[in-house]
Amino acid sequence: MYIPIILGTARIGRQSEKVARFMLAEVLKYGLESEIIDVRDFRIEATDNTETGKQARRLAEQVARADGFIIVSPEYNRGYPGELKMMLDMLYKQYARKPAGICGVSSGPFGGARMIQQLKLVCLGLHMVPLEDAIYFPRVEELFDDTGAITSQTHYRQAKRLIDALVWHAGVLKE
Amino acid sequence: MYIPIILGTARIGRQSEKVARFMLAEVLKYGLESEIIDVRDFRIEATDNTETGKQARRLAEQVARADGFIIVSPEYNRGYPGELKMMLDMLYKQYARKPAGICGVSSGPFGGARMIQQLKLVCLGLHMVPLEDAIYFPRVEELFDDTGAITSQTHYRQAKRLIDALVWHAGVLKE
Amino acid sequence: MYIPIILGTARIGRQSEKVARFMLAEVLKYGLESEIIDVRDFRIEATDNTETGKQARRLAEQVARADGFIIVSPEYNRGYPGELKMMLDMLYKQYARKPAGICGVSSGPFGGARMIQQLKLVCLGLHMVPLEDAIYFPRVEELFDDTGAITSQTHYRQAKRLIDALVWHAGVLKE
Amino acid sequence: MYIPIILGTARIGRQSEKVARFMLAEVLKYGLESEIIDVRDFRIEATDNTETGKQARRLAEQVARADGFIIVSPEYNRGYPGELKMMLDMLYKQYARKPAGICGVSSGPFGGARMIQQLKLVCLGLHMVPLEDAIYFPRVEELFDDTGAITSQTHYRQAKRLIDALVWHAGVLKE
Repeated sequence: MYIPIILGTARIGRQSEKVARFMLAEVLKYGLESEIIDVRDFRIEATDNTETGKQARRLAEQVARADGFIIVSPEYNRGYPGELKMMLDMLYKQYARKPAGICGVSSGPFGGARMIQQLKLVCLGLHMVPLEDAIYFPRVEELFDDTGAITSQTHYRQAKRLIDALVWHAGVLKE
Repeated sequence: MYIPIILGTARIGRQSEKVARFMLAEVLKYGLESEIIDVRDFRIEATDNTETGKQARRLAEQVARADGFIIVSPEYNRGYPGELKMMLDMLYKQYARKPAGICGVSSGPFGGARMIQQLKLVCLGLHMVPLEDAIYFPRVEELFDDTGAITSQTHYRQAKRLIDALVWHAGVLKE
Repeated sequence: MYIPIILGTARIGRQSEKVARFMLAEVLKYGLESEIIDVRDFRIEATDNTETGKQARRLAEQVARADGFIIVSPEYNRGYPGELKMMLDMLYKQYARKPAGICGVSSGPFGGARMIQQLKLVCLGLHMVPLEDAIYFPRVEELFDDTGAITSQTHYRQAKRLIDALVWHAGVLKE
Repeated sequence: MYIPIILGTARIGRQSEKVARFMLAEVLKYGLESEIIDVRDFRIEATDNTETGKQARRLAEQVARADGFIIVSPEYNRGYPGELKMMLDMLYKQYARKPAGICGVSSGPFGGARMIQQLKLVCLGLHMVPLEDAIYFPRVEELFDDTGAITSQTHYRQAKRLIDALVWHAGVLKE
């Protein structure tokens, strides 16, 4: 089973990269195939056609192969990052009937809770099956140590539960 | 009073440009200062810092001068275009206490109604004052004739009412 | 398979009742078991405990038996009716892993599109699986003739497609 | 200036009542007129007409007199309580151009952050002016001591700031 991790911010100094690496390690440990799909690698040039350009074709291959997704994203001004939305909007039918688990990241106390609500509606718009149980990474600057290891046992348990749910949904939705 | 029009999609063949030009003409006719702020002119390069880069500084000047905004945007997969969100997220404090009127654009029958709800929450996140009464441009391909003139009298009345509301709110919020 | 129709408004003169009756007829015609769960029958008394009272116990039986739901609801001030939310909030675990198809009703042109977005998030909160493809009943006063028959062929096709999707999802999620 | 507190849940054992009493004390201390508008006092009977019944007429008097509102509400399944929505939906034009500050209440860590987003859109639907800066009361069971006094100094400062913002907006919007 192939469950890639979408890293949803391209900002310099992004903390979400630590979360994406943590989730990637957990998915690989679980025995699934995975990798990070980084929004930085899907920037649209001025002359690109969003839905038929080179970037979209490249993304289409990865998304078509996926059985489900983990989306790691910070909250900017109550919503999702624009670069994440641009990448998601490149495709349409390749997402259908695939489960999506969301990891919300924030410097503040709410772990992207408002962004997650908006992103769930976008996932539904793309005919994904968004899982209700998201993982929240509030105060992300304090969550990881200098080696990039997470200091919270809770997050290991939640990652396990999210992957369980993704695998279950991916299995039944594939029929 | 300076009420610029934010054109919220960079896609090739964008229909929203017709709406932005229509709204610009109405605002100028009303006797206000205006111009189109085009998301195409605010693309972020890979090496740019989103909030301190050249694009952000240029946008900051225009936004700081504005008394209010008209945001013209299509709906993509129930949400706002990524390029619009990237541009809005470049700044923060310059938007505060300024009213925003939203024009939703769609090929389908709902004129971007779902996008408008998500965008209002982003506007609130930026401490703008979003006006409840948006203008809807559904089935946009049929709304304009070959010269770019709008064929709907209703939209002239709604544009007038939106500008009235923007001017009123901009006036009282400026105190 | 038992797919009840939740009628989400208790208002006097409610137009949504026509929609609920139309959907009920379509579900029965399809060969499934169904009935209307009317929010009017689940009013909470002042001395009732919302989650353990008589109404909640009665609702729990119907919801536990259901394989999926069709929710018919108007939009009031961009959101769902309070009486619908009160009824949904009576229970929790009985909704889990059951698909929900939403029918939005309005006097205006948008068929409850904004309410549908808020209601999808509530359905996710209850661990239902909301289907993206809702059915819209805009300008409902003109949609039905005096005998209560719907005058729109489109809606017959959409009802068929919604029931197909509910049956498919109910089947795979039951495993 | 009259800024009533809307207490948005009727549930037995509601924790939000402590928050409403705290906010009421702060508003009175500030020197404004206030009182609690309790959703328990606005239950709709089966034979009531929502918008013209006795309850609606009584509410209309209070709301018409108000210069702004503080709404105290828990989050149930990502949304607002049904009884709050039923009460808000009784009226329409009396809310227009009045600011609303929201206090979110939860047993969990997010203080109603998702409910607040949905409620802001309803406030906009009613043509209120929702303030972006809400107050969050997470883990509410631990926030108050046995006498009902709040143990958090932060909340005193936030209450002061919310009332400042309500008074400012009420002042300028009244013109």
